Amino acid sequence: MSANGKAVHEAQDRALPVCQPERLSESMRYSVLAGGKRVRPVLAIAACELVGRSAAAATPVACAVEMVHTMSLIHDDMPCMDDDTLRRGRQANHVAFGEYTALLSGDALLALAFEHLARGCADLRVVPAERALRAVAKLGNAAGAGGVAAGQVADKASEGKPVSLAMLEFIHLHKTSRLNSAAAVCGAIVGGGTDGQIESVLRYARSVGLLFQVVDDVLDVTRTSEQLGKTAGKDQAADKATYPKLLGVEQAQAYMTELLAMAEAELQGFDDAERAAPLQHLARFIAYRQN
Amino acid sequence: MSANGKAVHEAQDRALPVCQPERLSESMRYSVLAGGKRVRPVLAIAACELVGRSAAAATPVACAVEMVHTMSLIHDDMPCMDDDTLRRGRQANHVAFGEYTALLSGDALLALAFEHLARGCADLRVVPAERALRAVAKLGNAAGAGGVAAGQVADKASEGKPVSLAMLEFIHLHKTSRLNSAAAVCGAIVGGGTDGQIESVLRYARSVGLLFQVVDDVLDVTRTSEQLGKTAGKDQAADKATYPKLLGVEQAQAYMTELLAMAEAELQGFDDAERAAPLQHLARFIAYRQN
Repeated sequence: MSANGKAVHEAQDRALPVCQPERLSESMRYSVLAGGKRVRPVLAIAACELVGRSAAAATPVACAVEMVHTMSLIHDDMPCMDDDTLRRGRQANHVAFGEYTALLSGDALLALAFEHLARGCADLRVVPAERALRAVAKLGNAAGAGGVAAGQVADKASEGKPVSLAMLEFIHLHKTSRLNSAAAVCGAIVGGGTDGQIESVLRYARSVGLLFQVVDDVLDVTRTSEQLGKTAGKDQAADKATYPKLLGVEQAQAYMTELLAMAEAELQGFDDAERAAPLQHLARFIAYRQN
Repeated sequence: MSANGKAVHEAQDRALPVCQPERLSESMRYSVLAGGKRVRPVLAIAACELVGRSAAAATPVACAVEMVHTMSLIHDDMPCMDDDTLRRGRQANHVAFGEYTALLSGDALLALAFEHLARGCADLRVVPAERALRAVAKLGNAAGAGGVAAGQVADKASEGKPVSLAMLEFIHLHKTSRLNSAAAVCGAIVGGGTDGQIESVLRYARSVGLLFQVVDDVLDVTRTSEQLGKTAGKDQAADKATYPKLLGVEQAQAYMTELLAMAEAELQGFDDAERAAPLQHLARFIAYRQN
């Protein structure tokens, strides 16, 4: 794990003390501290550094976005959603802790995300309250009806039906990309970026967010459960709309290349190549990842 | 509906535009605009007025707290929780819209609560960002592992077991009272109350919050489903810990009287009797309500 990844992990560990009822704390800790790729924290921190601030200013945002993401995974795995039993190489939260605890630990993580963001920025004193409040609004939008929840509903409603490319883009834009974008944009906001810088970061993040989903879909059909650490071939079994299903695997892979180029182009506008390097590496990491 | 109640209803209507996917918007609107007692919005606005500001400054807080409360009801009614089919006199959200939509509209409402609070206070310009951010943190804590979610987990985990009075108080403190207190405290915060005033409001709200739950428990055994607009006798059927079960109906009613007196005593500290009147009426309304 990188130094920033370690800082985020430790901050999340501190943000999740074991308290009554332990069943709830343990369920929250189980999923948040399980690891994962931590793409969103990296995005938040790299965007904050890109606009000239240190990683520490973005730690509350990075933790908050990851809590929202973890909530969405816990709820996504539940029986009334994807009914998945495996996540990040181990039992899904609802299998390990039972259904009602999984439901409520997702709710608690979503609430904690905003509490942590607000309190964390206030404690830091280097992030003005106006900026922190703007980040709260952006994250709220991306987590709810303007993002994750809208994407999940559209995704479920599309199962077993013929799905247009427009609907597929709607689903992935909302379900995945908006939260990735919010991570980067919030990082740039708390980092004190100008409006123009925040716009560039947003466009970069949109390309990377979509790239992330196309790669995910492709891996689901080209890799095994063991290689992925989660159930492979699940999308196909549920007859879900995916890029390989709609475009074929080869076309989907060509789309990946195109999206990577678009993301990299957005970084050209920043003079400081050294500061832009982490976001460039991240885009490539996402494009070439194997699980 | 009072003028303040109408303002909150209209603000929530505006905060919930119908957008894609309509299924999600409609599910959110169905539960938020269903009415209900709106105790928390009244608390938030009355506390804001108590410390000397107009109701308008507390409208974003009032809406946000009611969204959090509505989310908790939607999730509480789900099959993996209380499996209730009736709410506020009509079908529970998961019955009307299906289980996954209910799950996700709860998530979306929770996220919207924070977005609305942050954006609403920023738009008003009369609430300094520091105060709005403090309200976000308080509401996040009350909605999650420091409040509602913790109370719901403890409640479910207690079903069918002998429950101590200490556990019963833990459940109600977290499941209900913390959110009521957050409504009042956040109202006093955005209203610009002093630390001492905020403390008084908190103690008042704690008594009223507990009062609310004891009354709820008593009504569940003394009234019919038709009178309540929700399934009566449900707690008993699920063998849930309640005040009438633990203390008997008469003792529970005596406790109601005691809590009302404690709440009223907290308001004596405020010089301006006129400003304190709404909170005094609210406590009495809660104590004497019939559904």
